[in-house]
Amino acid sequence: MNIAMIGLGKMGGNMARRLARGGATVFGFDVSAATRDQLSGEFANIRTFASVAETIAAMPAPRVVWMMLPHGQISENTLTELKGLLGAGDVVVDGANALYKESQRHGAELAEAGLEFVDAGVSGGVWGLANGYTIMLGGSKEAIAKVQPFVELLAPAADRGWLHCGPVGAGHYTKMVHNGIEYGMMQAFAEGFALLKAKEELELDVAEIAEVWRHGSVVRSWLLDLTADSLAKDKELGELQPFVPDSGEGRWTVLESVELGVPTPVIAGALYARFASRGNDDYGMKLLQMMRNAFGGHALTKK
Amino acid sequence: MNIAMIGLGKMGGNMARRLARGGATVFGFDVSAATRDQLSGEFANIRTFASVAETIAAMPAPRVVWMMLPHGQISENTLTELKGLLGAGDVVVDGANALYKESQRHGAELAEAGLEFVDAGVSGGVWGLANGYTIMLGGSKEAIAKVQPFVELLAPAADRGWLHCGPVGAGHYTKMVHNGIEYGMMQAFAEGFALLKAKEELELDVAEIAEVWRHGSVVRSWLLDLTADSLAKDKELGELQPFVPDSGEGRWTVLESVELGVPTPVIAGALYARFASRGNDDYGMKLLQMMRNAFGGHALTKK
Amino acid sequence: MNIAMIGLGKMGGNMARRLARGGATVFGFDVSAATRDQLSGEFANIRTFASVAETIAAMPAPRVVWMMLPHGQISENTLTELKGLLGAGDVVVDGANALYKESQRHGAELAEAGLEFVDAGVSGGVWGLANGYTIMLGGSKEAIAKVQPFVELLAPAADRGWLHCGPVGAGHYTKMVHNGIEYGMMQAFAEGFALLKAKEELELDVAEIAEVWRHGSVVRSWLLDLTADSLAKDKELGELQPFVPDSGEGRWTVLESVELGVPTPVIAGALYARFASRGNDDYGMKLLQMMRNAFGGHALTKK
Amino acid sequence: MNIAMIGLGKMGGNMARRLARGGATVFGFDVSAATRDQLSGEFANIRTFASVAETIAAMPAPRVVWMMLPHGQISENTLTELKGLLGAGDVVVDGANALYKESQRHGAELAEAGLEFVDAGVSGGVWGLANGYTIMLGGSKEAIAKVQPFVELLAPAADRGWLHCGPVGAGHYTKMVHNGIEYGMMQAFAEGFALLKAKEELELDVAEIAEVWRHGSVVRSWLLDLTADSLAKDKELGELQPFVPDSGEGRWTVLESVELGVPTPVIAGALYARFASRGNDDYGMKLLQMMRNAFGGHALTKK
Repeated sequence: MNIAMIGLGKMGGNMARRLARGGATVFGFDVSAATRDQLSGEFANIRTFASVAETIAAMPAPRVVWMMLPHGQISENTLTELKGLLGAGDVVVDGANALYKESQRHGAELAEAGLEFVDAGVSGGVWGLANGYTIMLGGSKEAIAKVQPFVELLAPAADRGWLHCGPVGAGHYTKMVHNGIEYGMMQAFAEGFALLKAKEELELDVAEIAEVWRHGSVVRSWLLDLTADSLAKDKELGELQPFVPDSGEGRWTVLESVELGVPTPVIAGALYARFASRGNDDYGMKLLQMMRNAFGGHALTKK
Repeated sequence: MNIAMIGLGKMGGNMARRLARGGATVFGFDVSAATRDQLSGEFANIRTFASVAETIAAMPAPRVVWMMLPHGQISENTLTELKGLLGAGDVVVDGANALYKESQRHGAELAEAGLEFVDAGVSGGVWGLANGYTIMLGGSKEAIAKVQPFVELLAPAADRGWLHCGPVGAGHYTKMVHNGIEYGMMQAFAEGFALLKAKEELELDVAEIAEVWRHGSVVRSWLLDLTADSLAKDKELGELQPFVPDSGEGRWTVLESVELGVPTPVIAGALYARFASRGNDDYGMKLLQMMRNAFGGHALTKK
Repeated sequence: MNIAMIGLGKMGGNMARRLARGGATVFGFDVSAATRDQLSGEFANIRTFASVAETIAAMPAPRVVWMMLPHGQISENTLTELKGLLGAGDVVVDGANALYKESQRHGAELAEAGLEFVDAGVSGGVWGLANGYTIMLGGSKEAIAKVQPFVELLAPAADRGWLHCGPVGAGHYTKMVHNGIEYGMMQAFAEGFALLKAKEELELDVAEIAEVWRHGSVVRSWLLDLTADSLAKDKELGELQPFVPDSGEGRWTVLESVELGVPTPVIAGALYARFASRGNDDYGMKLLQMMRNAFGGHALTKK
Repeated sequence: MNIAMIGLGKMGGNMARRLARGGATVFGFDVSAATRDQLSGEFANIRTFASVAETIAAMPAPRVVWMMLPHGQISENTLTELKGLLGAGDVVVDGANALYKESQRHGAELAEAGLEFVDAGVSGGVWGLANGYTIMLGGSKEAIAKVQPFVELLAPAADRGWLHCGPVGAGHYTKMVHNGIEYGMMQAFAEGFALLKAKEELELDVAEIAEVWRHGSVVRSWLLDLTADSLAKDKELGELQPFVPDSGEGRWTVLESVELGVPTPVIAGALYARFASRGNDDYGMKLLQMMRNAFGGHALTKK
């Protein structure tokens, strides 16, 4: 059981570890020599290489090549390089977050080159190493059959936590929607805990409340488990900035809602709250102040 | 261990059963004779009575009287009646959903009458009988101490799933926020599954996707467990109307957000989606059509 | 034509001026001696007094007493005082912004005291002196008939810009909805201009665009006129904080939407944007950061 | 002064009329012979032709060719055809709604063919014939100079109501944002009038209220003028379906907000309200019903 893992970062590294633990031989590539050495030092059955070309050259065919790279140019370049290195019967899996339409294009481009392509949505974050990853796959039956043995090692159990969702694109589409839901759930919790915190006269303990909700309540969930753990350590969050990044999937979900004409007020509301947390609404808010002054003579709040 | 349970409906009946199983003697009242007979037939230690007065009269003091009644007039009348029946050292628990401000008023009124009051937010739905209920309590330490033995039977375990949140009102406030979060989570799932369903060309199986997300994904949760079970039985939902009631807690959460000045776009968005599902935005939408016709000459869609 | 004006601030002062210009004799009260002297110095037919009691004592009956006071305690106290000073046939008008339910209570209280009450929603801001005020009235036909001569002076023209909307409460309800719409319109402009500003590569001139939209476009409006004037003077708004107050009417509109079950996503969205501009979502946003770190290992942005 | 008008529909036809009235000679094309005959019958200086090729052949160079066609394939095909018919110094204006990115691509394609391109956002609807159109232009100074004489006839006045916003794309971008604002304003009015209508006990007259707001209020606007006129004729809107189409610009605005990271909760909320009015949230709402039943045993509303 041989698999190439291209990209050994936070996600790819742990996936390599889980595959190695399961008995697979992993041919790993990462741009960082330190990362490569770390992985190959941990597991005898993780072999690392200093280039994609060397990684592929070292593997016997037919090959399964799993990419865990940032979407965008790095991913595009690597796919182009792989087209020149691989041959009929090989499968490329893109396990990073990517826009499903890009994955559909990638699938078509690889098919033209005689290669198979699978888009894999992978959920589980830093806990996937221990708990297993949920894996949502798009591709042909034949291609999925080739990656299935590895997916069974990555998922929480051989028969649970992975799904062949549909044709190429279906894996990343399903993952995109998953993350859209995640945005909405996270924001729902954020709003609720903010309401608990703001009700000062009741002196509610947000950490204790998060904990009690874990047992028997309707909102019990893995996100709540993590929230309770974190709040138990620091319930004031006094060191943090109210500044929330977003990494693409939430945006793609909203774009899709517009394209399909399906209203997603909660997912969009969650995304916009993050945009606003980063000051992206500042000009609009200044304009509102100015308008209030213009029609009502309301005092201005200046810097 | 004696406790009165006033109201033996969907929630109160199951809570009586769970208390009886745990060894408590339950003095139960319900307006429905059939409901009373059902409960007293099931458990020797559930005794039922045809009036609140008879129920209280049969109990030895000091008494814990747990109300599970619809909020509003029935609940108000029963509290008034209980003031006349109970004496010093007795505790009334309101375990139904109620606006925390009303509970604070009830607490003050009972205190004037020399009685103690506890507001209890109870979560767990129809599954609480088997799994236990999350219980969020507001009241004095003394009052909570009196209800604790019963709460320990109702919760998933004696030391888990219940919390003394704060003074009177804190239980129902915490439950209100819990339900607000629930609204947001439910809507997040609804939007996500709608996006899966609408992407017709990918022919995604929403039931299989719900199931796979239960294993290792970030959105795993009890609501997802229930959703997966339901979709496994019927994934088209073809018999249902797109008509979603709301029962007060979501509204109260939004009112509170306005009062506190804390933005809750996701919870409000979830509530408004339910309002719209019931046609409550029809006049506004007709007006939009009319406006489009007036400025742009766009054709009208008539009945 | 005699009228008392209780409160001579930004709104009340200009309304007194417009009434005096129209030929009415105004009996004015304000807590500020400087304000009183200013008004009585400007117009021979504005007489000012150092207390409400003196104001009323100086007026011949039957009296029309128009209050322009901040809603809340000052307004409540003045109504109580007026009940003791006025007599049958006198009318009290509350022309300030007030929750219509409070106005309905005030109307009932004054009716018990044999007095008439009119709630008047007044729109027009600092421009009302020159342009006239839109006035929305709630009250009995008899009461409205008594205030009509004054309302005709305040409105843009005797037969335009004022309306007897319905019974007591109808004036403030209509004004509340007016302001809710205003919140939505203002936010729509704020979002649009923010999108223009953010599209840096097109180097759009927001001031010129605001001006061109005033001529023939679908969004032409008085708010746009004011916006264009302000942007012509300062299109960067660099001195302003992105910090937007709200003064009650927007909140009341959202509360009413919840009570009526009518979805108002745009009005609520506009209100919440203001809440967020003031940092009221900070705790929630910190929690989101913390959650992202907990499940995905994403780096924290600290202070 | 010669200009070609390609597309003589609701917008293009009236623009041809306004140009002809202003003294321009219009070379008009439309697929409909009836439309062509109508226009050429009305004005001696509107000449119509049965094909784009004939239209262009009849015009002396240098030419200004103004397209008013539905965006998408028809527009693309016509641009391709025009590339073959026009020569150096000719300008093509796209005056229909189009995604600014498409217009930027069109500009680049025409530039390669040695032609100039102007994207023109045109606002004013069916009222533009009488009142003039707001026109927002993107293109080079040279190209704008060539279309300026015609734009001055189309705008409300020669020096008002038109703007050279920036390079190619800037006209359609500005128009897109204009329409996004329009969506938000329309929804704000729709929500407000729905709140007036829903408050049944006050028996408010929405037509009279719309009319009074036109005089002196903060929300006075052209959209309100139209609304008041329409409600004066029919305030119940009983014949209309609560079904609101959308025609692209609102969607593009939301897509842009996501791309730029600028929150637009009001514009997105307005768009989503339209989506929901068409039943596009039905599956999600059914799912919510099902979930409520699953956790709380709430009764289902079936067809």
